[in-house]
Amino acid sequence: MKHVLILGGGFAGLECAKRMRSENFRVTLVDRWNHHLFQPLLYQVASGALAMAEIAQPLRSILSSHKNVTTIMDDVVHIDLPNKRVQLKGRSLDYDFLVIALGSKTSFFGHNDWAQHTLGLKSLDDAMAIRKKVLLAFEEAESALNSEEAQKWLTIVVVGGGPTGVEMAGSLAELSHRVLKDDFRHIDPTQAKIHLIEAGPKLLPMFPGDLPDYTRERLESMGVTVHLNCPVKDVGQGYVIAGDQRIDSGIVIWGAGVEASEVSRTLAGVNLDRAGRIEVLPDLSLPGHPEVFAAGDIVALTDKHGVKVPGVSPAAIQMGAFIAHSIQSEPTSGERPAFAYWDKGSMATIGRSAAVVSFAGIQMRGFIAWLMWLFVHLVFLMNMRNRISVFLHWVWSYFTWQRGARVIQSPRNS
Amino acid sequence: MKHVLILGGGFAGLECAKRMRSENFRVTLVDRWNHHLFQPLLYQVASGALAMAEIAQPLRSILSSHKNVTTIMDDVVHIDLPNKRVQLKGRSLDYDFLVIALGSKTSFFGHNDWAQHTLGLKSLDDAMAIRKKVLLAFEEAESALNSEEAQKWLTIVVVGGGPTGVEMAGSLAELSHRVLKDDFRHIDPTQAKIHLIEAGPKLLPMFPGDLPDYTRERLESMGVTVHLNCPVKDVGQGYVIAGDQRIDSGIVIWGAGVEASEVSRTLAGVNLDRAGRIEVLPDLSLPGHPEVFAAGDIVALTDKHGVKVPGVSPAAIQMGAFIAHSIQSEPTSGERPAFAYWDKGSMATIGRSAAVVSFAGIQMRGFIAWLMWLFVHLVFLMNMRNRISVFLHWVWSYFTWQRGARVIQSPRNS
Repeated sequence: MKHVLILGGGFAGLECAKRMRSENFRVTLVDRWNHHLFQPLLYQVASGALAMAEIAQPLRSILSSHKNVTTIMDDVVHIDLPNKRVQLKGRSLDYDFLVIALGSKTSFFGHNDWAQHTLGLKSLDDAMAIRKKVLLAFEEAESALNSEEAQKWLTIVVVGGGPTGVEMAGSLAELSHRVLKDDFRHIDPTQAKIHLIEAGPKLLPMFPGDLPDYTRERLESMGVTVHLNCPVKDVGQGYVIAGDQRIDSGIVIWGAGVEASEVSRTLAGVNLDRAGRIEVLPDLSLPGHPEVFAAGDIVALTDKHGVKVPGVSPAAIQMGAFIAHSIQSEPTSGERPAFAYWDKGSMATIGRSAAVVSFAGIQMRGFIAWLMWLFVHLVFLMNMRNRISVFLHWVWSYFTWQRGARVIQSPRNS
Repeated sequence: MKHVLILGGGFAGLECAKRMRSENFRVTLVDRWNHHLFQPLLYQVASGALAMAEIAQPLRSILSSHKNVTTIMDDVVHIDLPNKRVQLKGRSLDYDFLVIALGSKTSFFGHNDWAQHTLGLKSLDDAMAIRKKVLLAFEEAESALNSEEAQKWLTIVVVGGGPTGVEMAGSLAELSHRVLKDDFRHIDPTQAKIHLIEAGPKLLPMFPGDLPDYTRERLESMGVTVHLNCPVKDVGQGYVIAGDQRIDSGIVIWGAGVEASEVSRTLAGVNLDRAGRIEVLPDLSLPGHPEVFAAGDIVALTDKHGVKVPGVSPAAIQMGAFIAHSIQSEPTSGERPAFAYWDKGSMATIGRSAAVVSFAGIQMRGFIAWLMWLFVHLVFLMNMRNRISVFLHWVWSYFTWQRGARVIQSPRNS
């Protein structure tokens, strides 16, 4: 029985594991976390709207009925392509087929020293760190000795004008200007300043037409200060320098870019793009290694229709399914088919009743787009319980302006 | 305007703050956490059945409409009774009236070195630590090199036969023997051993009649090994010695006893009982300090009907309300009234469809008692959103044997 080793339980790896239904294959899925994370809603955990468990589900429980799939919670240390072996922290595993779906991590474009002063948003750990830091900042401001000190605590910087930055900034604006409005006695949370910093000339540059402009206007009307054409030049303890401006802030959330998981750089004889992504063949295999595939946003690929495949979850899911099909069709007589990305469009939410949607040449914005965003995200959530739970929390929040998960797990002085 | 300073936002302190409706008083509530915790359901967070946010709510948001109440998130360092001043970590506060409602902490009966080898269950931090350790133990067992090592990972010890120990042991038995049943490939989670250790001759000794025996039988039928008359003699790295038995286990959950929060021991000229609880006057004030009250399980009191008031949430709520009333009735002409505890009965859940209930001389057990337990806990949950959310999770779990919050926030090797 051939052994298929899948590294990573994100959208690509999990989809591949679920599709490996043939009993001729033994499948092992390795992930450093015990759960699959629904990353598109991670910013809602960070801003206290949803609980961790609502967007994360144990990989074991998802794959419980897939008896040919074994799940291992461990870190990938090294991939030994010539010997077809993967070294984990706890053991090593041989494979017949390998699927590398380790995803991406926050990139600081060479300024790795900025990492210690910023908060990324890739994992539940990250989201809980942001939630804690933001909620504690309001506590510190409430206890501050003077209004200058308080204002520094009430200044939050979000770097990056892509979907992560836009969603995070919008959500923090609503948190401070609406949700927390009546909860303090010494400070006025509506005076909190949310800065969104983008190096390029517009927000959400991947969206067509006037959607980027609409996004900026909408965020500004929600009280977000948007800085365009404003590359970050330095980040240090308590400040950001962006363009020619210095912003004093204890909280800098970094949504500006990603690069491939570091394991990609340890692969011998494999071409990577500048962000460390693996340049795969049209069938998603590695050059010279037909038994090794890569999927998800660790991959740099222009598909057979000449489309540069973006690092989004629909692309990851399509790649995972494609690879599972390829492996289960082996040994094939002729050449393998080439992967083709099916663009399902893009959507991003700005805030309550406001989102932008673009698909099949159609552009939408505002309330209808927001309802579509809600609907699509509910449908793609992993299971029915989470769907119901998230739906109820959203309905509740819509009518009460409350958030369900404003809990700091640890005491203030821990 | 008189200043009422309340230390602690548990059941006693929060109830007192909510009842201070008179505008003649300025109220400050201090807690080291940002939330009120519904402790009776904490074991369900520890065993992955509920999410943190479902049993915790920000104190600020609960007290949002109480405009005369200020909430401060900080630690109490010292209470200076003669100067009517409380030192927090970040500042000091003067008071006209003081309410000490700082609760209790896990007690090791003098063996404080056992603390490092055991897990308490008093806070969300504690519950998340237990959840992580238990779920990771199954991961370690699945990766273990031999069955002996695996069995050690699959052995969990719960110390203390009171409600906390019984509920925790029952919940862990269901987790391993039912919920995780199909999720592993190398180990059989139903082989996990849950030991419940009690120093005295019966479980739930505060319950009358045959309820303690019923509880033991029921736990045993669920696969829990119950050890009675078995005092813990030593706890070390990876083992517990109880009675004349040594149990090898990496997870020891300590539900054996509580003592008053350490601040009580810093009070000058105040009598404490052996567990550090404050011996208050019948009106809940401190001898010689009519302006200082204590409430909740930091108090040792036999009420005016000769009943020793237990450290349970209904008693805490009654004390908090009583003190708020006393303060708002000041200045009083005659003597203050004495506190009388209204015993609302006791209940504890053992597992699915099994609980014990005792009130007003009536004893109940089994399914009906379990439904009563569910109903009462839903009613007393802080707000409607959490009620709906918890109710749905319980219904879901009942029919699917799944648990909603089996998420480990951090990677395995962190």
